[in-house]
Amino acid sequence: MSKKQAAAASKGGAAKNPSTGVMAKINASIDVDKRLYTHDIAGSRAHCTMLMECGIVSEEAGHAILKGLDAIESEIAAGGFAFDAALEDIHMNIEARLFELIGEDAGRLHTARSRNDQVATDFRLWVRDALDTMDARLASLQIALIDQAQAHAATVAPGFTHLQTAQPVSFGHHMLAYVEMLERDRGRGRNCRARVNADCPLGAGALAGTSFPIDREQTATALGFDAASRNSLDAVSDRDFALEFLAFAAIAATHLSRLGEEIVLWSSQPFGFVTLDESFTSGSSMLPQKRNPDAAELVRAKTGRVFGALTALLMVMKGLPLAYAKDTQEDKEPVFDAADTLGLCLVAMTGMVAGMRVEPEAMRRAAATGHATATDLADWLVRVLDMPFRAAHHATGRIVALAEAKGCTLDALPLGELQTVEPKITADVFSVLGVEESVASRTSFGGTAPERVRAAAAEARKRCLAKEPT
Amino acid sequence: MSKKQAAAASKGGAAKNPSTGVMAKINASIDVDKRLYTHDIAGSRAHCTMLMECGIVSEEAGHAILKGLDAIESEIAAGGFAFDAALEDIHMNIEARLFELIGEDAGRLHTARSRNDQVATDFRLWVRDALDTMDARLASLQIALIDQAQAHAATVAPGFTHLQTAQPVSFGHHMLAYVEMLERDRGRGRNCRARVNADCPLGAGALAGTSFPIDREQTATALGFDAASRNSLDAVSDRDFALEFLAFAAIAATHLSRLGEEIVLWSSQPFGFVTLDESFTSGSSMLPQKRNPDAAELVRAKTGRVFGALTALLMVMKGLPLAYAKDTQEDKEPVFDAADTLGLCLVAMTGMVAGMRVEPEAMRRAAATGHATATDLADWLVRVLDMPFRAAHHATGRIVALAEAKGCTLDALPLGELQTVEPKITADVFSVLGVEESVASRTSFGGTAPERVRAAAAEARKRCLAKEPT
Amino acid sequence: MSKKQAAAASKGGAAKNPSTGVMAKINASIDVDKRLYTHDIAGSRAHCTMLMECGIVSEEAGHAILKGLDAIESEIAAGGFAFDAALEDIHMNIEARLFELIGEDAGRLHTARSRNDQVATDFRLWVRDALDTMDARLASLQIALIDQAQAHAATVAPGFTHLQTAQPVSFGHHMLAYVEMLERDRGRGRNCRARVNADCPLGAGALAGTSFPIDREQTATALGFDAASRNSLDAVSDRDFALEFLAFAAIAATHLSRLGEEIVLWSSQPFGFVTLDESFTSGSSMLPQKRNPDAAELVRAKTGRVFGALTALLMVMKGLPLAYAKDTQEDKEPVFDAADTLGLCLVAMTGMVAGMRVEPEAMRRAAATGHATATDLADWLVRVLDMPFRAAHHATGRIVALAEAKGCTLDALPLGELQTVEPKITADVFSVLGVEESVASRTSFGGTAPERVRAAAAEARKRCLAKEPT
Amino acid sequence: MSKKQAAAASKGGAAKNPSTGVMAKINASIDVDKRLYTHDIAGSRAHCTMLMECGIVSEEAGHAILKGLDAIESEIAAGGFAFDAALEDIHMNIEARLFELIGEDAGRLHTARSRNDQVATDFRLWVRDALDTMDARLASLQIALIDQAQAHAATVAPGFTHLQTAQPVSFGHHMLAYVEMLERDRGRGRNCRARVNADCPLGAGALAGTSFPIDREQTATALGFDAASRNSLDAVSDRDFALEFLAFAAIAATHLSRLGEEIVLWSSQPFGFVTLDESFTSGSSMLPQKRNPDAAELVRAKTGRVFGALTALLMVMKGLPLAYAKDTQEDKEPVFDAADTLGLCLVAMTGMVAGMRVEPEAMRRAAATGHATATDLADWLVRVLDMPFRAAHHATGRIVALAEAKGCTLDALPLGELQTVEPKITADVFSVLGVEESVASRTSFGGTAPERVRAAAAEARKRCLAKEPT
Repeated sequence: MSKKQAAAASKGGAAKNPSTGVMAKINASIDVDKRLYTHDIAGSRAHCTMLMECGIVSEEAGHAILKGLDAIESEIAAGGFAFDAALEDIHMNIEARLFELIGEDAGRLHTARSRNDQVATDFRLWVRDALDTMDARLASLQIALIDQAQAHAATVAPGFTHLQTAQPVSFGHHMLAYVEMLERDRGRGRNCRARVNADCPLGAGALAGTSFPIDREQTATALGFDAASRNSLDAVSDRDFALEFLAFAAIAATHLSRLGEEIVLWSSQPFGFVTLDESFTSGSSMLPQKRNPDAAELVRAKTGRVFGALTALLMVMKGLPLAYAKDTQEDKEPVFDAADTLGLCLVAMTGMVAGMRVEPEAMRRAAATGHATATDLADWLVRVLDMPFRAAHHATGRIVALAEAKGCTLDALPLGELQTVEPKITADVFSVLGVEESVASRTSFGGTAPERVRAAAAEARKRCLAKEPT
Repeated sequence: MSKKQAAAASKGGAAKNPSTGVMAKINASIDVDKRLYTHDIAGSRAHCTMLMECGIVSEEAGHAILKGLDAIESEIAAGGFAFDAALEDIHMNIEARLFELIGEDAGRLHTARSRNDQVATDFRLWVRDALDTMDARLASLQIALIDQAQAHAATVAPGFTHLQTAQPVSFGHHMLAYVEMLERDRGRGRNCRARVNADCPLGAGALAGTSFPIDREQTATALGFDAASRNSLDAVSDRDFALEFLAFAAIAATHLSRLGEEIVLWSSQPFGFVTLDESFTSGSSMLPQKRNPDAAELVRAKTGRVFGALTALLMVMKGLPLAYAKDTQEDKEPVFDAADTLGLCLVAMTGMVAGMRVEPEAMRRAAATGHATATDLADWLVRVLDMPFRAAHHATGRIVALAEAKGCTLDALPLGELQTVEPKITADVFSVLGVEESVASRTSFGGTAPERVRAAAAEARKRCLAKEPT
Repeated sequence: MSKKQAAAASKGGAAKNPSTGVMAKINASIDVDKRLYTHDIAGSRAHCTMLMECGIVSEEAGHAILKGLDAIESEIAAGGFAFDAALEDIHMNIEARLFELIGEDAGRLHTARSRNDQVATDFRLWVRDALDTMDARLASLQIALIDQAQAHAATVAPGFTHLQTAQPVSFGHHMLAYVEMLERDRGRGRNCRARVNADCPLGAGALAGTSFPIDREQTATALGFDAASRNSLDAVSDRDFALEFLAFAAIAATHLSRLGEEIVLWSSQPFGFVTLDESFTSGSSMLPQKRNPDAAELVRAKTGRVFGALTALLMVMKGLPLAYAKDTQEDKEPVFDAADTLGLCLVAMTGMVAGMRVEPEAMRRAAATGHATATDLADWLVRVLDMPFRAAHHATGRIVALAEAKGCTLDALPLGELQTVEPKITADVFSVLGVEESVASRTSFGGTAPERVRAAAAEARKRCLAKEPT
Repeated sequence: MSKKQAAAASKGGAAKNPSTGVMAKINASIDVDKRLYTHDIAGSRAHCTMLMECGIVSEEAGHAILKGLDAIESEIAAGGFAFDAALEDIHMNIEARLFELIGEDAGRLHTARSRNDQVATDFRLWVRDALDTMDARLASLQIALIDQAQAHAATVAPGFTHLQTAQPVSFGHHMLAYVEMLERDRGRGRNCRARVNADCPLGAGALAGTSFPIDREQTATALGFDAASRNSLDAVSDRDFALEFLAFAAIAATHLSRLGEEIVLWSSQPFGFVTLDESFTSGSSMLPQKRNPDAAELVRAKTGRVFGALTALLMVMKGLPLAYAKDTQEDKEPVFDAADTLGLCLVAMTGMVAGMRVEPEAMRRAAATGHATATDLADWLVRVLDMPFRAAHHATGRIVALAEAKGCTLDALPLGELQTVEPKITADVFSVLGVEESVASRTSFGGTAPERVRAAAAEARKRCLAKEPT
């Protein structure tokens, strides 16, 4: 069959869609949806096999179709497939080629199927793969963070609130905070995957199901879904899985933006807490001395892009009546772009974290400013002198004021000065005013004491490496 | 202790925050966060009890605190509590009152605690409650939809794609499509709840944990959490639970907007598919004859508000360095508003669906236009004449053109005319060209045949009423 | 000079940026910013000419540079330019080629310039062009609407509020409502263009200006800007012009989405108000009888994409410290995509409106349902019987109830029935109860009477064709 | 007339809207729109006066209405007005009270008017006022920035790109960058105001205009509009003015978020560039030594809220068919909230900037790190030795490497060392390597030289104080 005949055959009766001009430009999706080709062919294989087994298509026709699909998959993989915008989308491009390869029997593949259930199936399969990729990359970034956490469990850094020095913390502890965020991301990803995989739309037809005696459980199982979707109208109209993927991605990207911001801060001259590996910085066209943290900035920025994708699709879905509407064709680009973007940001961040040189001296120096052990003093007053916390907080405030007036740190104030505020203070207090002592004392569960951090890192690594997610 | 002394005591040493002027206006959160009072007091109770049992606060002081908290809760519940903007937030308002009631011992409650871990705990408890409320309301709306589905399993309606009549469907089937959407919303809500409840922040302190020998598992358990959070920096910085709640709410609101749009369409004069109960419509100040579907329009519109809340908080969190930053104070209003809005929309939609009078005649009439059984004809050609689907699709297109030219429906074309397109067509074909027959034939799983719809409705009701979510 | 030497020369001393791997992927922008090539070369020409005239670069070197730039522009236009991702962006690709072509003097072009001011200039020039394109396309769509308005000034259609028939209107009047929306879009576009063009960033250097005695007014004028930017830090950090462009585009896209929604409604079977030209519809892979309004749906949907672009960039800019940050590299893709999308939607909508066949019979039939002339009745009671409007509104409500009870239209009620509600009603009332009469009576400025519509259309066309915008 | 009768009278015939329950909750807007009362009364006054002058309402009735409106305005202003949710909105609340006060003639006010044109008019008037307020507050913040700029024209600070020290700049110059941003905001505000004010919707009726011989120009003029709106359908459907206000506010809020971020950075211990006035900081419940920049953080965060409002309304408007739909009732809360938020942030930021103590020593120290004068060295090589810029950039990179290896600043390298890289360098080069010299040399227009900054500040102040905006 000629290409032209094949195209005509695959497009059927009434449908004669323009291949050029503005309609072609706005309507054709092949430039975007060709990324779905393996998923589309997998879906067609499962559908064809089922049609044969249910006696709807003959063995002979079915095997011809399957062989044709194999050939097409190889052609596309090898880059030798000529996509045609006049055929609009990946489904019609493949079907038209099938006509060329095997003739009229190609027309039996679309029995008991519509592009509406077909694309919904393809796209779910793609999102499922993307979620698996994201999970693996999230785990890699966790490992990089855990490596740094174990190396720097005892590295004292300033813990900030409001970007003001608050209390000294372990830098490893700070790394592990991101491990927790990513763990939640992975949890959201798993939940999303379960819902993506819960329902196979194939067999929902255009919107109403079919009168052919198909076996939807068989195709669902063949494609690795947990079940067939329960409502044909919903099956072709639903894009929750894409929205949920984008929401997952937007929250994960937000986490990366926070780490990106911190890396930018830490590698600035006023902080000087870390030195980035040169491979993640770039130079300046005008300023010869610069090494700029471009990758960290781009990771920070690309949150916008991922959330923009969620915004785009949510706005598409708002107020859309059932069942299938062409509006939903706008679902793939935001999802593809968000997956590409998040995937790239995860890899970049993993490289940055793994290659980042920590500067313990600069961190310790910063931790020692700002009277960061004032809380330790207040806690000592509570613990040793049994002062109510608020009274201790009050007394500490007065002692901090003394230190500020003298321009010295808390542990440099003589005991006598301390006693002008609270006469019962003894020399024992100096045991809690050093930053190392402060960090070491935070042994409560989840606290920043190095021993806690080491245990938490070990546990996190174990969780990360476990085959079955917890 | 006087109010003024109490306020001073609770605010401690260095902190003297302005109670008037622009700073008070931008900084104080009491107007918003007073909604957290029961959760704040529950958290304080658990914390106090733990401090006693761990020997950090004496039994005597602890019991005084607990008694004071009881009194304060009653006062607030009774509306007799004087909130003071100068005390900024719910935490300080309650603590200052505690000083008034029990004196200096009130200052022991804040031992080993910070407002940072306190508010994170309060807010998680609130979101957990909100998720439970949403789940119950989603279930109620499901029941209303299932009721309509069972009543209208055999009511023939036009199934649209692109808002063009595509195939006849059961109106009950259409109702059940929304039951599926809401089921996924409930699944997302449950997953979100599990993550909200996974980690109790209490005991994370300002950011670093504490040196007091506290028992975090005890407070976590007392408050119904599954465990204590594993990283103190993350515990006070994380607002994932709020973002995830908002993403859940935005997707759910999008579903409601679709149903809202359909109700607006259905109750318009050109459709006339349903008549809304008067209690969900309103009149016009200028047009005396109007009954407007205001509630449906507002439900449709309020999606914007819910998604705006997600936008707001995601933008707040973007690029925020660890640990606690005041920026996160902007977390509560969007969440409160989104919960109120979604909750209200769910109740309104439940009422609308339950009270909606379906007009089967109008629906059937519309289903019979647009050659909605053309697919049935094509399927008959495949099934009976063994034509490839594409060839059948092509032949059907030509038959539709004949009908259009004659201005009649497909089943009104004489057999002879049909045979001009395909000579092998027999009179048996007329058995599939009626809309009732078409609907009845879609017996594949998830299809629109009345028997399928009845079974699906029964199963959905069972799932809905089950105590344990599936 | 060899390509490799040229690349090294153009990248200068410290900067050795990776050309492969994840950093290249996240950092390189050449795939995106090559669209700026004509603007980049125009900027370089203006800069080089100024450097010569100010005596900073010799005539000889300057002319060699200009000649080289000409050659490069031709190469790119002809498709023969080999872009190299290792050179990151359009600026370095062009400069490296300049080294190849003219040798060391190429290195003089970047005197008193940085990529920071260079890209800000290029991008403003691009946005200026895009605004001009959008303005022309908005005007074309206005003309198509005005054509329909003049053809259908006297076509009676139902005017809806809440999608309920409210009052009969002229369909031409409805078309002109969109002309007004687009007129505001054009106004916003013009205001945006004026701000884009107010400040030329060139000469701001990396962030601080330069010590070379450059003439910024000269380059600004040469590039068609109104003036040079007043603050070098702002010049390289500002992306307001891109944000404002995106806000303009998002509001315009929202207008198109409303028209898209209406076209989808109007071309549905229950409405049947318009028939779309086949070139803007497409067929179905499963449903042979369908002609779907795909283009209208896609225009409706693509609002999401345009607003997603604004969301993306606004989130990028949020909280970004001065001056230039790499985050702003994320500015071009959303703007390019929004401009392409809006531009395409405008052309598609122009085609749809121009080719749309209006069905006056269906419109009139719909206008006659729903007691659309009830307001006319109420107004008659006020005007003729001097009843207060509220009392008239009340009486009309009762008359509508009578008509509903009898299942007839208002003008089919006998006079006697009308008088049971208000005895003073005379037969004169029937002169206002027909839909044509109703439309014709709305002669107030901005009203829907055909004579008003014709005058408004004529005036709109004149405004539209005027060279100078009003 | 009794309240109940009045309510019934004002609500007319068919409309009996529920005052309690879920419909009342979702439908009533009085809690929100009562903020429009002065604008609503102004609109009614203008409408009533016009009705009288056009002979549609008698002088007697008209004057009674006007007197009643005066009384109602006083009552509301005095806080003595009992708003009733059963009356839904501000319009009906006022009208019902008018019935109580003056009886049946109150019913004449709504002649030739609908709530649709009424609320569109009210809301435009409100937005116009809000724009005037924003403009005044933007100007105040500009003045505060200009004051700092003049005080610190010669204060040397590090200019950052990528948050890496790039070149020394004048801190005053940095302040003026924000003046430029706000100037563009004011321009956008003025353009928005012109469009808000271009069209008065009053007289558009429900959607179709009116058959009463009203004078729309008169009401437009009386209310200060430039003209009456040209299309009645557009007049009641349009919410562009609200969208444009929100886009204006979102961009302005983004500028504030950038300054907020910088203030947070500058007041952190590692930077230490500014000390905030205590009135804009707050203390910690746990950390007695802290002074947190809460106001700056909240300004940074509230960008999310303002942009969330734009998102909300844009999503409401997406795909909304003409004419009026209840969806648009969701327009006021986002606009009110955005105006309140932006207004508050502007006042807070003005206070912060005015009260901020700059620490010149810390800034200068930071400016001297990071080889910030490397560009000056490169420029010297170009200017004095006539090296091509790229070659100079390359040589400078090697000299920076020498300085880094020795751990010294550029101006501490001996001449001999410099000459190992480029033998022609003379001792004159040291005249450009100091940070003060560097700043002073950037005398190009828009550059950072103190003399430029002083001139720019003076010019900005003049522009700011000019009555007529430029």
